[in-house]
Amino acid sequence: MESPATVPALHPLDAATTLEALSDDRFQGCIPPAYANFIGPFGGVLAACLLRAPCMHERRLGDPLAITVNFGGPVAQTPFEIHARPTITNRSSQHWALELHQDGSIPLTATAVFARRRETWSAQEAARPEVAGPGHYPPIDSRDLPAWVANYDIRVISGGMSFLADSPRAQDSSETLLWARDLPARPLDFPALLALSDVFFPRIFVRRPTFVPVGTISLSTYFHADAGELADQGDAHLLCRARGKRFHNGYFDHSGELWGAGGALLATTHQVVYYKE
Amino acid sequence: MESPATVPALHPLDAATTLEALSDDRFQGCIPPAYANFIGPFGGVLAACLLRAPCMHERRLGDPLAITVNFGGPVAQTPFEIHARPTITNRSSQHWALELHQDGSIPLTATAVFARRRETWSAQEAARPEVAGPGHYPPIDSRDLPAWVANYDIRVISGGMSFLADSPRAQDSSETLLWARDLPARPLDFPALLALSDVFFPRIFVRRPTFVPVGTISLSTYFHADAGELADQGDAHLLCRARGKRFHNGYFDHSGELWGAGGALLATTHQVVYYKE
Repeated sequence: MESPATVPALHPLDAATTLEALSDDRFQGCIPPAYANFIGPFGGVLAACLLRAPCMHERRLGDPLAITVNFGGPVAQTPFEIHARPTITNRSSQHWALELHQDGSIPLTATAVFARRRETWSAQEAARPEVAGPGHYPPIDSRDLPAWVANYDIRVISGGMSFLADSPRAQDSSETLLWARDLPARPLDFPALLALSDVFFPRIFVRRPTFVPVGTISLSTYFHADAGELADQGDAHLLCRARGKRFHNGYFDHSGELWGAGGALLATTHQVVYYKE
Repeated sequence: MESPATVPALHPLDAATTLEALSDDRFQGCIPPAYANFIGPFGGVLAACLLRAPCMHERRLGDPLAITVNFGGPVAQTPFEIHARPTITNRSSQHWALELHQDGSIPLTATAVFARRRETWSAQEAARPEVAGPGHYPPIDSRDLPAWVANYDIRVISGGMSFLADSPRAQDSSETLLWARDLPARPLDFPALLALSDVFFPRIFVRRPTFVPVGTISLSTYFHADAGELADQGDAHLLCRARGKRFHNGYFDHSGELWGAGGALLATTHQVVYYKE
């Protein structure tokens, strides 16, 4: 008889994003308290759950290329259902409509595109920021932050949360540079990369010296890496950069980049965020 | 009896995006040949049609904040149906699931968020590029380009299509700066701004010296302007900038900005595009 000690424990991210297939198009999940945010679970882990549904679907074609997740209302720490429906399947791409249902409402909707790549002329136009390695920066202290932060090793290079400073003051730039990976370390895959694309704290926390209520409204992530590039990444830290362009009467945007250890731009990400001040 | 000459003609954009309500949640439209692209209609005008459905819906709350449109297959120049369903309505925001149905398939899906803004601390962080006015640049010659281009006054400042140059050669940067507005001029509103957010020719046409097949896969536009700012814009040219970050085995991204005459950042936009070379 096998001893329980020899059964490898699921990584917290895998435990949080495990889905049970209820039928071809319906999957059940539940986010544990370990990934709680201020209200409801961390958006990145919810997005990862939504992405896992087409990944598990028997009609899946190719790998994730793009996903947009819309956050309409809080998700409770109780079971939910994800409905995943392929709307059109072409020779090399496939479109998905996704919804998260809970207690008779639809707090989240999403669309995703999966695709097969073929070798073509390629070029990485953006330049990776030049910074010292993750060992040069201390990990963020997650003790006074929402539970989900403890599942990430986040090392801020510049542009931290202003209200955590000894003498908080307003900043002119919302740009943040940070290193991040799962904690404990975990090999990168598409759901983990998607969750990491939401690891940036809200840009208004960089600009403003005080805490204000915020919530992501819509998040889009484009995957530039293929599965091979993700496998090459292993569990190394990602270099992440984000900056907002306009804060206007309750809503701001940001655009972000996630760079791999070898210098490849693995993903770009964009979101629009609600704020109250 | 009123003379036909006194009835003002519909602007081509309004003619192309007119929807007829078939029921609360279903709308019929049809894109005329004037907005044709290489295969099917111009994506910007299809996106504008999709946005018009919730704008017309009796349950609409507030103004557009964000929309993502996914282009899964070609749309024919025949009537189509848009299905528009509010998935969740909060006090100040509303989420929509949108689909375009034609001939038994769903070539387009979209999600949109509408919102009411309230006055808060605001800041425009991005800097508007400093360029000479639209009168300093010649309008693009649309004669050898798809029909839709003739509905826009596009004046390239830098980063034009390389294959149109006298001696086409590869470029290191995909950045384009251009002035654009509807032709004939038309007061700006949300559908027109959304269509303009897709006015950038594909970034690979800037980088590469030859024409290659391309198609937008997914487009997300965030509206930073409220209806009052759009009204202030009138029919002035918008200053538009776009640049790609990575071209990788068949897919590239771009991020764009649309600046108003008064210097406000009216919208930001992102897309992922298929290419074959």
